[in-house]
Amino acid sequence: MIVKGTHYKTVWMEGQSVFHIEQNKLPFSFAIFEAKTYQDTCHAISSMIVRGAGAIGASAGFGMAQAFLSAPKEGFKSYVERARQEIEATRPTARNLFFATERVFEAGMKSVDEAVACAQQLAAENDADGEQIGIYGDGLIKEGYRIMTHCNAGWLGFVDWGSALAPIYRAHRSGKRIFVWADETRPRSQGARLTAWEMVNEGIDHRIVPDNAGAYLMAQRQVDMMIVGADRIAANGDTANKIGTLEKAIAANFYGVPFYVAAPTSTFDMNCASGVDIPIEERSEDEVLYQTGPDEHGDIRKVQVCAPGSKAVNPAFDVTPASLIKGIITEKGIVEPNLEAIKKIIPHGNRT
Amino acid sequence: MIVKGTHYKTVWMEGQSVFHIEQNKLPFSFAIFEAKTYQDTCHAISSMIVRGAGAIGASAGFGMAQAFLSAPKEGFKSYVERARQEIEATRPTARNLFFATERVFEAGMKSVDEAVACAQQLAAENDADGEQIGIYGDGLIKEGYRIMTHCNAGWLGFVDWGSALAPIYRAHRSGKRIFVWADETRPRSQGARLTAWEMVNEGIDHRIVPDNAGAYLMAQRQVDMMIVGADRIAANGDTANKIGTLEKAIAANFYGVPFYVAAPTSTFDMNCASGVDIPIEERSEDEVLYQTGPDEHGDIRKVQVCAPGSKAVNPAFDVTPASLIKGIITEKGIVEPNLEAIKKIIPHGNRT
Repeated sequence: MIVKGTHYKTVWMEGQSVFHIEQNKLPFSFAIFEAKTYQDTCHAISSMIVRGAGAIGASAGFGMAQAFLSAPKEGFKSYVERARQEIEATRPTARNLFFATERVFEAGMKSVDEAVACAQQLAAENDADGEQIGIYGDGLIKEGYRIMTHCNAGWLGFVDWGSALAPIYRAHRSGKRIFVWADETRPRSQGARLTAWEMVNEGIDHRIVPDNAGAYLMAQRQVDMMIVGADRIAANGDTANKIGTLEKAIAANFYGVPFYVAAPTSTFDMNCASGVDIPIEERSEDEVLYQTGPDEHGDIRKVQVCAPGSKAVNPAFDVTPASLIKGIITEKGIVEPNLEAIKKIIPHGNRT
Repeated sequence: MIVKGTHYKTVWMEGQSVFHIEQNKLPFSFAIFEAKTYQDTCHAISSMIVRGAGAIGASAGFGMAQAFLSAPKEGFKSYVERARQEIEATRPTARNLFFATERVFEAGMKSVDEAVACAQQLAAENDADGEQIGIYGDGLIKEGYRIMTHCNAGWLGFVDWGSALAPIYRAHRSGKRIFVWADETRPRSQGARLTAWEMVNEGIDHRIVPDNAGAYLMAQRQVDMMIVGADRIAANGDTANKIGTLEKAIAANFYGVPFYVAAPTSTFDMNCASGVDIPIEERSEDEVLYQTGPDEHGDIRKVQVCAPGSKAVNPAFDVTPASLIKGIITEKGIVEPNLEAIKKIIPHGNRT
C-alpha cells in the first residue's frame, strides 16, 4: 500500500518491536504505534489500533513471538502459555488471531528463533494471499461494475492488499472502470473512515453509503455485486463478519445482487460446524452513544449523538448463512460455501 | 405528550404565529421556535425544525393559513398560490404536506377565517388519528413483546401521540410489559435522538440499535414485531418511509417477523398507483459526513466522521413494496396493503 507516496505495511516487526499503523487515528492523522512488549501488542489489538481479520492475525503472531523473546528461562512454558491466553482474549471472534497464535506457539516450543521466523512468514503469507485473492476476484468484475463493500477489508485489514478490496485494486490497476459503494459501517464507521480513505489514496471513484441506503441502491439497480471480508468462516460456509453484513446479504439476495465473501483460507475454522458455533463479541455501548472526529479547527472532539439517559446494544459481528453467499474468494480460488467444496481446499483442517 | 411534566403539542398556532418544538435541538436542549410568517414556517419545515409526516402536515396547513392571513387584497390569489408552491417545495416526499396545503388552500378561497379553522381542524384530526391508531395497533401487541421501530414516528412526528409509537404508548399505559428496539436511523439519527428521547420521557424500557444490528437481533429471535411510520403510501400499499425501512422490511420477512406500517389515512396518495411514482428526496451529503452533538462540556460541536476528500450519497427515503408489509394500521382500522382493501377505507380518494 502507498500512503502519501511511501510504501507501508499495516503491521510489521523489527527487533523486539511490532509496529502498527494507528488505525484509531485514521483518516484524520497518520501515525505509527510501536508495541515494545507482547502486552503492548495485546493493547494494540484490544483497543483497535490494529483491526481487520488479517492484520489482527499478523499482529497476534508477532505478539506471540514477542512473548517468546521476552520469556524468562525459569517458568518459560507457563509464561508463554499465559501470554498466549492474554493474546487470544483480546478479540474473541477473529479466527486469524487463533490461527496465528497456534502456529507461532508451536514453532516457539522448538526455538525462539523459529517463533519469530514463523510470525514473519505468517505476515508474508498474508501479503501473498491478498494478492492471489485479488487475481481470482478480479475475474468476477466486469467493466463498469459498481461494487458495494461493507466495513474495511482492504490494506488496513491485512498486512497489505486486503481481502474484499484486493479484487477492486487489481481491477482498477488493470485499467477497468469501476465504482465502489463504501458502506459507512456504524458504529465504528470503518467504511466511511478506512475504506473511503483507501479509495482516496488509490484514486478510485466511490461514495460513502449510510448503512440504511444499501437496499435502496440495490432496488434502484445501482449495485452490480457485493464483496465483503470475513472474520471467521465455519466449515459449512456460514460467515461471521462485521455487524450489518447479514442485513446486506439478505437484501442482496432479495434483489439478485451476487454476494461474495473474500478471505484467505486461514479464516476458515473447521472446528466450527456452522455459524451457531461462532462466538459474537459484544462491545461497549459508548461506540454507539458517542462519535469522535475533528471539529472545524481540526481538534479531535468526542460528541454525544444519542438521547441522554438511553442505552444501546453493540454486537460487533453477525453471521451470514452460507445460503446467502454466492462464493468465497480465497487465495486458492473461488469456493462454493458448502462443507464438501470447502474440504477440497482445506483437506487437513485449516493447517495449510 | 408530556415534556418535563408539562403538556405540549409538537406544533400549534396562536394568532398569526406557528409554534414548533425545535426538533433540531433535541434531545440535548428543549426550545420552541416561533414562525411569525409563512416563510418562517417554510424554513421550519425545510430545515427540519419540524419533521415527521404528521407534524409536517400540521405545520404546512398552519403555514398555508398564515399565507391567507398575510395576503394583500391586491394580488391575493397569486400571493397565496405562490405561498402554496413555496410550502409544497420544502419537502417533496411527505404526502401529508400536500394533503394539508390542498385542504387549507380550498378553505381559504372561501374565507381567511375558514383557512385558519381548517388548519386547526387538520391538527386536531391528527391528534385523534394518532389515538385511534394506538387503539388498533395495541390489539396486535402481546404481553412481553419486543417491538422494533425505525426513525421517529412518535409524538414528535405528529401533533401528539404519533403513528408507529402510538400503539406502544397505548400498550405501555394499559400496563402491558413491552420493550422497544429503537433503530439509530443514520444519517440524522432520529431514532437515537428522538424516539429514544420519547422513550426516556415515557419511562419505556428500550435500547438504541445501530442500523446494522437489526437483522442480527431478528436472527437471534429478539424481535417480536416491527412497526414503522410512513411518509407516503401508494394506492397499492407500497410505502415510502425513512431510508432503511426497506432494508428492515426485507430482513423482517426473511426471519418471519411481522412488519407493520402505522399511518393516518391522510398519508395515502391514491394518485400514486405504486411506489415507483413516489419521488425520493436526496439530501445534502453533509448529513453523512458530519455529526453534531454536545462535547463533554455540553457545547454543541460539529465533527467530521468520514474520510476527508470522500463524498457520500444521502437518499432520505426508500419505498417498501406492499408484499413485505403485513398490515397498515390506520385510524380506521388495520388494512391489508392492496388496492382493493385500501379503496374500502378511502372510497373517495383520500379526501376523507
